[in-house]
Amino acid sequence: MAVLLGEKEYFPGIGEIKYEGPESMNPLAFRWYDENRVVAGKTLKEHFKFGMAYWHTLSGDGSDPFGSATHLHPWDQAADPIQRLKDKADAAFEFLTKLGLPYFCFHDVDVADYTPNVEEFEARLQAWVDYVKPKMEQSGAKLLWGTANLFSHVRYMNGAATNPDFAVLAHGGAQVKAAIDATIALGGENYVFWGGREGYMTLLNTDMKREQEHLARFLHVAKDYARSKGFKGTFFIEPKPMEPTKHQYDYDAATVIGFLRQYGLMDDFKLNLEVNHATLAGHTFAHELQVAVDAGLLGSIDANRGDYQNGWDTDQFPNDIYELTESLLVILEGGGLQGGGVNFDAKRRRNSTDPADLFYAHIGAMDVFAKAMIIADQILTSSEYKQIRADRYASFDSGKGKEFENGTLGLADLRDLAIELGEPEVRSGRQEYLENLINRYIL
Amino acid sequence: MAVLLGEKEYFPGIGEIKYEGPESMNPLAFRWYDENRVVAGKTLKEHFKFGMAYWHTLSGDGSDPFGSATHLHPWDQAADPIQRLKDKADAAFEFLTKLGLPYFCFHDVDVADYTPNVEEFEARLQAWVDYVKPKMEQSGAKLLWGTANLFSHVRYMNGAATNPDFAVLAHGGAQVKAAIDATIALGGENYVFWGGREGYMTLLNTDMKREQEHLARFLHVAKDYARSKGFKGTFFIEPKPMEPTKHQYDYDAATVIGFLRQYGLMDDFKLNLEVNHATLAGHTFAHELQVAVDAGLLGSIDANRGDYQNGWDTDQFPNDIYELTESLLVILEGGGLQGGGVNFDAKRRRNSTDPADLFYAHIGAMDVFAKAMIIADQILTSSEYKQIRADRYASFDSGKGKEFENGTLGLADLRDLAIELGEPEVRSGRQEYLENLINRYIL
Amino acid sequence: MAVLLGEKEYFPGIGEIKYEGPESMNPLAFRWYDENRVVAGKTLKEHFKFGMAYWHTLSGDGSDPFGSATHLHPWDQAADPIQRLKDKADAAFEFLTKLGLPYFCFHDVDVADYTPNVEEFEARLQAWVDYVKPKMEQSGAKLLWGTANLFSHVRYMNGAATNPDFAVLAHGGAQVKAAIDATIALGGENYVFWGGREGYMTLLNTDMKREQEHLARFLHVAKDYARSKGFKGTFFIEPKPMEPTKHQYDYDAATVIGFLRQYGLMDDFKLNLEVNHATLAGHTFAHELQVAVDAGLLGSIDANRGDYQNGWDTDQFPNDIYELTESLLVILEGGGLQGGGVNFDAKRRRNSTDPADLFYAHIGAMDVFAKAMIIADQILTSSEYKQIRADRYASFDSGKGKEFENGTLGLADLRDLAIELGEPEVRSGRQEYLENLINRYIL
Amino acid sequence: MAVLLGEKEYFPGIGEIKYEGPESMNPLAFRWYDENRVVAGKTLKEHFKFGMAYWHTLSGDGSDPFGSATHLHPWDQAADPIQRLKDKADAAFEFLTKLGLPYFCFHDVDVADYTPNVEEFEARLQAWVDYVKPKMEQSGAKLLWGTANLFSHVRYMNGAATNPDFAVLAHGGAQVKAAIDATIALGGENYVFWGGREGYMTLLNTDMKREQEHLARFLHVAKDYARSKGFKGTFFIEPKPMEPTKHQYDYDAATVIGFLRQYGLMDDFKLNLEVNHATLAGHTFAHELQVAVDAGLLGSIDANRGDYQNGWDTDQFPNDIYELTESLLVILEGGGLQGGGVNFDAKRRRNSTDPADLFYAHIGAMDVFAKAMIIADQILTSSEYKQIRADRYASFDSGKGKEFENGTLGLADLRDLAIELGEPEVRSGRQEYLENLINRYIL
Repeated sequence: MAVLLGEKEYFPGIGEIKYEGPESMNPLAFRWYDENRVVAGKTLKEHFKFGMAYWHTLSGDGSDPFGSATHLHPWDQAADPIQRLKDKADAAFEFLTKLGLPYFCFHDVDVADYTPNVEEFEARLQAWVDYVKPKMEQSGAKLLWGTANLFSHVRYMNGAATNPDFAVLAHGGAQVKAAIDATIALGGENYVFWGGREGYMTLLNTDMKREQEHLARFLHVAKDYARSKGFKGTFFIEPKPMEPTKHQYDYDAATVIGFLRQYGLMDDFKLNLEVNHATLAGHTFAHELQVAVDAGLLGSIDANRGDYQNGWDTDQFPNDIYELTESLLVILEGGGLQGGGVNFDAKRRRNSTDPADLFYAHIGAMDVFAKAMIIADQILTSSEYKQIRADRYASFDSGKGKEFENGTLGLADLRDLAIELGEPEVRSGRQEYLENLINRYIL
Repeated sequence: MAVLLGEKEYFPGIGEIKYEGPESMNPLAFRWYDENRVVAGKTLKEHFKFGMAYWHTLSGDGSDPFGSATHLHPWDQAADPIQRLKDKADAAFEFLTKLGLPYFCFHDVDVADYTPNVEEFEARLQAWVDYVKPKMEQSGAKLLWGTANLFSHVRYMNGAATNPDFAVLAHGGAQVKAAIDATIALGGENYVFWGGREGYMTLLNTDMKREQEHLARFLHVAKDYARSKGFKGTFFIEPKPMEPTKHQYDYDAATVIGFLRQYGLMDDFKLNLEVNHATLAGHTFAHELQVAVDAGLLGSIDANRGDYQNGWDTDQFPNDIYELTESLLVILEGGGLQGGGVNFDAKRRRNSTDPADLFYAHIGAMDVFAKAMIIADQILTSSEYKQIRADRYASFDSGKGKEFENGTLGLADLRDLAIELGEPEVRSGRQEYLENLINRYIL
Repeated sequence: MAVLLGEKEYFPGIGEIKYEGPESMNPLAFRWYDENRVVAGKTLKEHFKFGMAYWHTLSGDGSDPFGSATHLHPWDQAADPIQRLKDKADAAFEFLTKLGLPYFCFHDVDVADYTPNVEEFEARLQAWVDYVKPKMEQSGAKLLWGTANLFSHVRYMNGAATNPDFAVLAHGGAQVKAAIDATIALGGENYVFWGGREGYMTLLNTDMKREQEHLARFLHVAKDYARSKGFKGTFFIEPKPMEPTKHQYDYDAATVIGFLRQYGLMDDFKLNLEVNHATLAGHTFAHELQVAVDAGLLGSIDANRGDYQNGWDTDQFPNDIYELTESLLVILEGGGLQGGGVNFDAKRRRNSTDPADLFYAHIGAMDVFAKAMIIADQILTSSEYKQIRADRYASFDSGKGKEFENGTLGLADLRDLAIELGEPEVRSGRQEYLENLINRYIL
Repeated sequence: MAVLLGEKEYFPGIGEIKYEGPESMNPLAFRWYDENRVVAGKTLKEHFKFGMAYWHTLSGDGSDPFGSATHLHPWDQAADPIQRLKDKADAAFEFLTKLGLPYFCFHDVDVADYTPNVEEFEARLQAWVDYVKPKMEQSGAKLLWGTANLFSHVRYMNGAATNPDFAVLAHGGAQVKAAIDATIALGGENYVFWGGREGYMTLLNTDMKREQEHLARFLHVAKDYARSKGFKGTFFIEPKPMEPTKHQYDYDAATVIGFLRQYGLMDDFKLNLEVNHATLAGHTFAHELQVAVDAGLLGSIDANRGDYQNGWDTDQFPNDIYELTESLLVILEGGGLQGGGVNFDAKRRRNSTDPADLFYAHIGAMDVFAKAMIIADQILTSSEYKQIRADRYASFDSGKGKEFENGTLGLADLRDLAIELGEPEVRSGRQEYLENLINRYIL
């Protein structure tokens, strides 16, 4: 069978997912997502570069702080760690292929069991690289990005690059080196840093400035190493405000951009933005995207969603056409994702225990992304949306407004112009009209 | 009577507030705040530079979105605007003097009724300047900072410096010019920008990048003007994440610092941090202070507090010894406020309708600040607090950790050191111990 | 002109709003809402009973805590209060008629200027009743509900029915009596209590139990009075957790239902649920509706929406098809609204200053309600939605599960059955599948 | 050694904790908590009945959703489950005795490893009962309450008593029966229900009404069984709004009280309130306590605290003198805890890895409770606090206000009285004064 890239079928009964016309009600098929559909000048496959998250999809077990695993995986049964990583890789590529996902992403500890023995762990990663490389060729699936998990092991409980103990930082360096090596070996297009414990639990024991300087240095040495090994891709920082720490230094897009600018990292690093992290930071996702676009730093997306009635990282699958339409408006106007793609950093609910739920979840998400792209493109090309905004700022396109932008007016000039221009006309912001406009294209 | 600086007594029955020993239970007296008390090498007066907020204290009327005024002021009755601003100034200086506050702060529209006629409004401000200047000399009260209200008038409904209409921006410039002139005329020590409507209500109608560039330009021309008039003080930006707009560009300390760095404003601008704004942004106040200290930009404080069970700007008077102790630890270790002071941007509750409530509110706040300073100083000078933190980072003070800080180790070096150093010892962060330590000094 | 029920045209240039087919892109027309469209066995007009909120639509001026009015109404100019209430009523009926709204709702102080003189205020209300009665007949518009504003006047700053001062409670009684009289005189179908300040600012000065007992007593005497005057309609309590008070006693649906049950008010009172109040209470709107449905107490709806990134009552117009579809699923399965309707307790944004914005806002809201009803009906009648839920609970429909429901099994029986039944099969909750199902009908 | 109740010493180097005078700065000693200190007519030991939570203290391993265990316990090493439960019990009683805690609390799965085999698990619990009974006698430590964990096992992923599958409910019944048996066998004073997964993940698949009816029935059969076995103690429901489920039925105090009233459970059930759960529900802890006191249902407390800047259940140790003073004011005025005590449902931070941290955490918490009790008693007995509140309601103590309370005034009477009484005097709520009063006693 074409989709079976391992010895065993881990998702029996689920054939390759096909595009079906909008009349279809078969829940195991796409209605809007056809990878070859062209919208806004590119295929949807090129726009999105959808990626599978190795951790949630293959390693996630449904456990939460109040309960143990509910998803018990057949690929996680072998006693030998090398056999187990192969089984998991088989399942991964079966999943990717059946669903038609063109990319995947990984943490080092997702693909191979972690061991504190540095050389032993490097060997396991190498075994995984050797095993998946031919699968990638065979299936066509590519590596969107790799990363190292510097937050789960006990030693990172006070941070990795920001740990007060240099020896811990060194171990973080060892893991990042190995993850970069694996990423390069597999032709990974980008490399990600999510600083899960780079922050503090209490300010009372923390030298925040020194920790942030260590973080900047750490990013520099990692970047320098990768470049020395020929890595041409982009490095991404993934902002998140909190969880697991009380405060995480990469709080939100604006904070990370300020950090990159302060420490001379703007040329090599961009942002990987996650929907749920925006929610936790008190922002809309569209806002975070706009901040990154305005700085020329929008790299990639972790697609999921949070819950507006609670305050933790639920990582639910995306399904809100508004959130995605407004996000794709920003992305399309901003020129698209720079180097990255759309990684489904999302997990089915603890009590979604059927293997098919994994497919439903991804299919629904991909479909709503596709539909949102179609709608956003229509809004940009067929509606008065852009014109309304352009008209609002017209007074700066010429005359005194333009002079102000050009820097040739001083404060006293402004004061005199206020008298000269008189009381400005009150102009509606037309928020309800614009919200209706969005609904006009969605519904 | 010494404290009566106008013709009429607006707060009858309330004499000058005196320092009374801690045995006193007279609620109209200080227990901890004695302006001449020396803590950590300075008098409390020098540390705090407590300021009265003209707006809440004199103009606040207790109204809220669901109800009309409950505080009706005798100084607000005269029909003539010039007489009314004089009456209000009389009340202001009576209040300042009776309470012993050394500073005050103002918006232009607090001290004189706003009128859209630029020259008429300039004249009113001038009348106020002329009237209060001798009162300042007589009372010794000084101007901590002035500012212009660019958010209340209908024309600013879409922003002032970030308004899509240049004519509105020009009017904002006129107001800022007049407010700077008044600030300079009164020997004001600083000038503040709080961008109440510099943000957006909906991204759908907003060009965020262009608006922020306008804001940067506006700050430059304002600063250049003031410098050209001989102003030596500091400019402050006051971060706030939202309210009245959905999103305010000066979101939090990190965002503002990134903005100042991006637009070349770091030499002239510092931060004026408000407790309630930290709360709304999802931060502790101590966090915001630490961010500013680490950037060398901690200028001034707006003292108040929010409510943890709701999500709007309650501007309650400070009374939490923890919040203040932890804040003063940061401030003291960070070298104090740079140029600014502690402005009580706080209002008594809508239903605190006795004039005496205004005094109780300030007295309680000043007392808890004083007590927090005493405690913070004891913690820093007499406890193991600083040593515990220093010990945590000792591995970076010499050897390989120091080399890493100095930039002489690469990623491959870190990997080799990880092997060499072996598994790091697990070291407790001692959070509960440190929290108990704080309580040891508070209770 | 048919829609002009007063002497003057207040909304010139806006003709009667018509239903246009889905091809229409005229933003001043309905696409989905046609009052005669039949869905789920009733016309949309009968389902929704859409109502205009006199306060937001006629009295709202765009002011907020940081700025003064931006909406200045031509009907609010006359010096004489009786003339002004007539002008406002003219505008109200012009608006109702042009938009085709079948209902309206009012607070006493919306329709006539409040005056503390009890008899004078009663006379003003009577003048208004006399003036609008013929307009209602002529236009066909009906009164969905009336209410009294017991939160804006200074005297209610500590509550009305829960005020510590009996004299304030008596004034609240006077207002409620007059509002009930007016409601009855106009054939109002329901009467609402929203206890804006029935709560506390601080527990430190509050006897919560005594205040709640006063509230219960107050509701009893109001209900008894109305019944004695022949009122047959329903009384509604509108839950809200906070704002303007720190804590409001009618916190959420469950709290209000507990209160009604405790104080013997279940026979006469039901709930008027508002979307934004659910948001503030940490619930979805669908949740609040379900709680009310399960208690048989779902009376009416205040339609609007909040903002998930801030924490105050924004009262924006509804536009989220998900929120409304999920809500209408609950309402349709629950048997509909009992006596009430859908009141647009929503206001255009402060900077939506065109009169047309008022129409856009209502049209978009009515349209999305209509579309949501169509979708919800399809889901209930054409999809597997109901069956999936029914199947989940099948084990309680017969056998031992049924015996448990019937109360014939004890704890020891359950223990024995656990052994007998063995480990239960793990059954997926199918959350993603169901979320996709909703999207299948929306998109 | 007196405190060693097992064969091995698990907390070496920590002697029995003693009361030391306030001058002591030894962090491993109490300053305020002396179990024999008499405050408000009772010893602190009698007031508080401090309890150790078996789960956090003995079973908690420091793991979180982003990282594995950091606390590895020597008592958790034996391969044999019976030996392991004995080792853990030894550690528990060593801890209790060294710290001087008079009580403990347990879930069934804390004290013995869970196994789905009903009889085998009953046998393990019995082995534990047999093992700890003599230890309780020897040490004097008593059982405050027991409970069953109906949320961790995979089968409970959709609830236990509210599970759609009757077979799961039956297993829940088996566990509750065994836990009640163990509680009775050890002389447990109360029995607790915390419905961790009694709620929903999505309303889309939920019949909320039927689930709540099942829950009520389940509580009835559990109660009837325990009473039939001679249990005289109180049953407690512990409210929590969410986590792990999106919505938990026992949302907050008001919701649970409404449920108990609706389903005839008020005579046997009271509330066990937790600080962090109040925070998550958007309430102050004092509020939740007051709601329970007003209903006569305040049974017990789970002492901990949350974090105001994030939205999950951090279960930190209590250390805020304000939160506790305001809570103890409510408890003391409300007549104390009915049957229950103060259970430290709190865990040291993940990175507080020293065994001594466990002691610091408890000591700090007990001390701040003791200090808060001393302060609250002083406020109630020595200050104007109670009188200020009593004075506010004086108008209802006699005359027309009293008549209103007695039910002899109708709405028309109130209207006439409003005219007769005229405009009420505006009386300040004195919030700042009262907040200062609290600080006067704290600082």
